[in-house]
Amino acid sequence: MVNLSDVARKAHVSKMTVSRVINHPDQVSPELMTLVQQAIEAVGYVPNQVARALVNQRHYVIRFLLLEDVATVEPNYAKLLIRLAHNLQQKGYTLEISLDITAETQSIDGIIVSGWRQEDLLKLQTLDVPVILYGAAPPNSPLSSVDVDNQAGIEKATEYMWRQGYRDIYYIGLSLDLPFAKQREAGYRAVMAQKGGRVNVYQTENHAHLADTLLTNLMHNFELPTAIVCATDRIALGVLRAVQRVYHIPRECGVIGFDGVFIDQLTQPQLTTVRQPFALIAEKIVAQIISQIESENTLEVENTSILPDIVVRETTNL
Amino acid sequence: MVNLSDVARKAHVSKMTVSRVINHPDQVSPELMTLVQQAIEAVGYVPNQVARALVNQRHYVIRFLLLEDVATVEPNYAKLLIRLAHNLQQKGYTLEISLDITAETQSIDGIIVSGWRQEDLLKLQTLDVPVILYGAAPPNSPLSSVDVDNQAGIEKATEYMWRQGYRDIYYIGLSLDLPFAKQREAGYRAVMAQKGGRVNVYQTENHAHLADTLLTNLMHNFELPTAIVCATDRIALGVLRAVQRVYHIPRECGVIGFDGVFIDQLTQPQLTTVRQPFALIAEKIVAQIISQIESENTLEVENTSILPDIVVRETTNL
Repeated sequence: MVNLSDVARKAHVSKMTVSRVINHPDQVSPELMTLVQQAIEAVGYVPNQVARALVNQRHYVIRFLLLEDVATVEPNYAKLLIRLAHNLQQKGYTLEISLDITAETQSIDGIIVSGWRQEDLLKLQTLDVPVILYGAAPPNSPLSSVDVDNQAGIEKATEYMWRQGYRDIYYIGLSLDLPFAKQREAGYRAVMAQKGGRVNVYQTENHAHLADTLLTNLMHNFELPTAIVCATDRIALGVLRAVQRVYHIPRECGVIGFDGVFIDQLTQPQLTTVRQPFALIAEKIVAQIISQIESENTLEVENTSILPDIVVRETTNL
Repeated sequence: MVNLSDVARKAHVSKMTVSRVINHPDQVSPELMTLVQQAIEAVGYVPNQVARALVNQRHYVIRFLLLEDVATVEPNYAKLLIRLAHNLQQKGYTLEISLDITAETQSIDGIIVSGWRQEDLLKLQTLDVPVILYGAAPPNSPLSSVDVDNQAGIEKATEYMWRQGYRDIYYIGLSLDLPFAKQREAGYRAVMAQKGGRVNVYQTENHAHLADTLLTNLMHNFELPTAIVCATDRIALGVLRAVQRVYHIPRECGVIGFDGVFIDQLTQPQLTTVRQPFALIAEKIVAQIISQIESENTLEVENTSILPDIVVRETTNL
């Protein structure tokens, strides 16, 4: 395939010169312009990424930096990665995947980070390319971020159960000291405070069997009809199993999860859930990273929380 | 950060020249070598990917080309992608994700393709970079491929159920006209022919609820103890649900799945399954693509099938 070298060789100039003619025609003499244009036609060249990079310092590559433990990677990532790749492709960028926070940044234009912890932020701030955080931003975030609105999502879920007629509403949250977990619990508490209903908050690790055991112990205290708002679909799976042994779902007990990635399609009855809006999240992340790359000035930090929707299925219809 | 341009500018030569000095020192004069070396020291430059690319045509980028419908992407991909990224990183390569079979190949060294169909193969063969297929290769494959050994995996599963003492063994396969689906079914048939057992083959689409319905209708014909070998964990999930309503698992009925990606961790009882060896698959894919990139000659087509292991859990212990 014909490339920049062939044009340079044909015109007897450097590749840098050819790139300048292509990308900054206002900066070159008419004679040079003609010379290079003729060479381009003669060899049949189409400008490409490598050529653009030489002059603009733009590589048209965005890195997805995954800092989470590879062994515990959730299926969520497949959906997000592929949407990011798709959206970036439409803007002429490619997406690379990296697991290494120390990797060089010379060959990329920006970074989208996932699975970061507080201790990673200093390093990320000091990189010489724009960085967008995926996930709940810390207070006074030094970097822009995009996430699902965790608190609003569980508020919606709790409100929905109240509207369906359930009055004894439980929240099974995550025993994790992370912002997203606390935000979800805060959503439940906010709605229950507003409704004046009894607050029943329990926590578990993110495993179906642990949630199953927890509910098996709690179930004898239910005042029907009872609703269970779950921090994740994994928890909801365990909750459904336990509760179904004793109660009718959804008539005596309603269950709602959070994620909508995959697990919700596997449960029986089919799980009502708060669906992570990956399409919108990916759109916003891409818009953010590109506007940071293309801006001449330093942009203000922007933290976006995207409101998710409830996907109503069979576990919540009183 | 200091880059190739800064060195070129300092030495008053082109970037191509600087790259040649760095990558092919045997091809340059001592005077030019000294000139560029001094410039490198003066500006504090460290060679990088872009520089290597100019001279070697090596970009140190491998593309993962996903041709499957984005909307139906399985969680399998998250695990494979991340292992590929990890293994490639250790060899100095980055992994980019693309969904577009027509994307230019000038900025990459090789392609790993997934979700391809027979009609994609001609296009893939004619690309000007090495291509490795992920998934069951067609007969007379024009390109090298790496996959789990589908037939041997189900043979192992069927053999295992026989050894456990189950004698009426069913196979619930996929109603898909694709090589991997046919290979899995062939594995069951081969073992049953060898054992002289009754052949019970049924097919369904890859959905838990369809498998549930299918088994609900089949269950009354069971001669206990019965085993059910499933083409996927999704199918096994539906099978477990149906069978548990009537029989004891595993004492009256045993169930084994195939995948071991995610679903197997969510079932109750915990599912015995044939686990896709993603770590080994990723290792082999990376070894293959790099050896094709680094070879001066055209290598022979090599189709690798990796034998999976059975992860024994609670659904198969008579």
